[in-house]
Amino acid sequence: METISENRCFGGTQGVYSHDSDATGTRMTFGLFLPEEAEDGPVPVLWFLSGLTCTHENAMVKAGAQGWAAEQGIALVFPDTSPRGEGVPDDDAFDLGQGAGFYVNATQDPWAEHYQMWDYVTDELSVYVANNFAIDPERQSICGHSMGGHGALTIAMSLPDRYRSVSAFAPICNPTESDWGRKQFTAYLGDNTALWEPHDASLLMRETGFPGPVLIDTGTADQFGDLLGTEAMAAAIAARRQNATLRLQPGYDHSYFFISTFMSDHVTFHAEALYGL
Amino acid sequence: METISENRCFGGTQGVYSHDSDATGTRMTFGLFLPEEAEDGPVPVLWFLSGLTCTHENAMVKAGAQGWAAEQGIALVFPDTSPRGEGVPDDDAFDLGQGAGFYVNATQDPWAEHYQMWDYVTDELSVYVANNFAIDPERQSICGHSMGGHGALTIAMSLPDRYRSVSAFAPICNPTESDWGRKQFTAYLGDNTALWEPHDASLLMRETGFPGPVLIDTGTADQFGDLLGTEAMAAAIAARRQNATLRLQPGYDHSYFFISTFMSDHVTFHAEALYGL
Repeated sequence: METISENRCFGGTQGVYSHDSDATGTRMTFGLFLPEEAEDGPVPVLWFLSGLTCTHENAMVKAGAQGWAAEQGIALVFPDTSPRGEGVPDDDAFDLGQGAGFYVNATQDPWAEHYQMWDYVTDELSVYVANNFAIDPERQSICGHSMGGHGALTIAMSLPDRYRSVSAFAPICNPTESDWGRKQFTAYLGDNTALWEPHDASLLMRETGFPGPVLIDTGTADQFGDLLGTEAMAAAIAARRQNATLRLQPGYDHSYFFISTFMSDHVTFHAEALYGL
Repeated sequence: METISENRCFGGTQGVYSHDSDATGTRMTFGLFLPEEAEDGPVPVLWFLSGLTCTHENAMVKAGAQGWAAEQGIALVFPDTSPRGEGVPDDDAFDLGQGAGFYVNATQDPWAEHYQMWDYVTDELSVYVANNFAIDPERQSICGHSMGGHGALTIAMSLPDRYRSVSAFAPICNPTESDWGRKQFTAYLGDNTALWEPHDASLLMRETGFPGPVLIDTGTADQFGDLLGTEAMAAAIAARRQNATLRLQPGYDHSYFFISTFMSDHVTFHAEALYGL
């Protein structure tokens, strides 16, 4: 592991680290905020999965999460959104390839060799941070933005014993019916749409739901609103009678200004689940 | 005026605007956060002057100020740190030229034509935002970071009737004795060091002080600590018996992680002055 940077932040430490990943076969970089309490022993952890074009850095510098996490004594992990580097396939479009891993394990060429972001986030990095930092693997929650909201929701519902709560900002909710989904699933997973379904949060919500609480915020002025499939998720939540709060926030768009506005609510929501309040 | 972007943020609006500046002879861009209260009438305003290499954008996306400003009903202005553009002189060094205006009016070639950041910030942009937005010019305070902390302190002490309070994060306090100062003052103002003195916060503190309260935070692990001249400012504050709080924050560096950690304190400090609490 290489320490790229460590900055004192809200009484804790905002670190950036890189390591060799078996899952992706590349060097991967992630951000990790540890609150002051981590000096005394393992603390609960909240994962933040970012959206299209983002690296580990965007949410770490723009979302304003550390202050609230420090207040609750919670660690934050900020994974990258894809493998990167010269030998890693890419696409000219911003929504495919590097910066657009979509939190799946690709099975199709040329993506399959490196694009294993599901395994990287849920398995390798999870073990890695628990082994190397004062993080309690028994107390994990997960959230994300846009493509990362898709990742958070699908991962949480697929691993219901792992995460105590899940939340999302403007998540891609129904990718099998969206241009933010069909294109990428075709590229990464192939033409058999049955293989896409485990990666569609609205379908998972209808089929299995989530045993813990769910919080979703999406702005009414989201410039990508038609791509998100919020309606399908709303209907699925209602049909399943899921323990969930879905908020349409008046006037807010898809930006980090939206995320930072409601970050306090999300961290508090997860803290209640992580501490069993 | 051109509206570059407007995003809903903490119930208010984070805008980015550009306009033709008479002071700099260039197109200038600035960020402006207006809290919800601005819909009903003019609100107090806190200026945030940024440091070397920054544009209007850095503090706007990284400092986490909007949430606290929204809570207090205060507007925030984020000016750029220099004129910019192809016709504007620059230097290969990051600490001279574009991104490094040092909040002075240059008198020397080739800088004098465009580098008039003192006039731009204190005069033109001040009038501009008061005329075009719901901002109360009778209730202004100012803060800044590093080079912007230098700007905030020197501007506040030079215009004591304008600002009710001044604060700074890791300010350049004694530029006439620092490599962050002598080089730039020589370039912008010439060799006569007497003309530098009105732009040295520690000298101003000894000579005139500030009629309102002063708050300064600097990290003990600041990687540029030797360039800041904090000792000179500390001595000047003590000599003058200025109403001031100078805090050396253990373990914090020069980054926005440091700024965001203490932003809540700074906004609260200014709110008390702006509302006469």
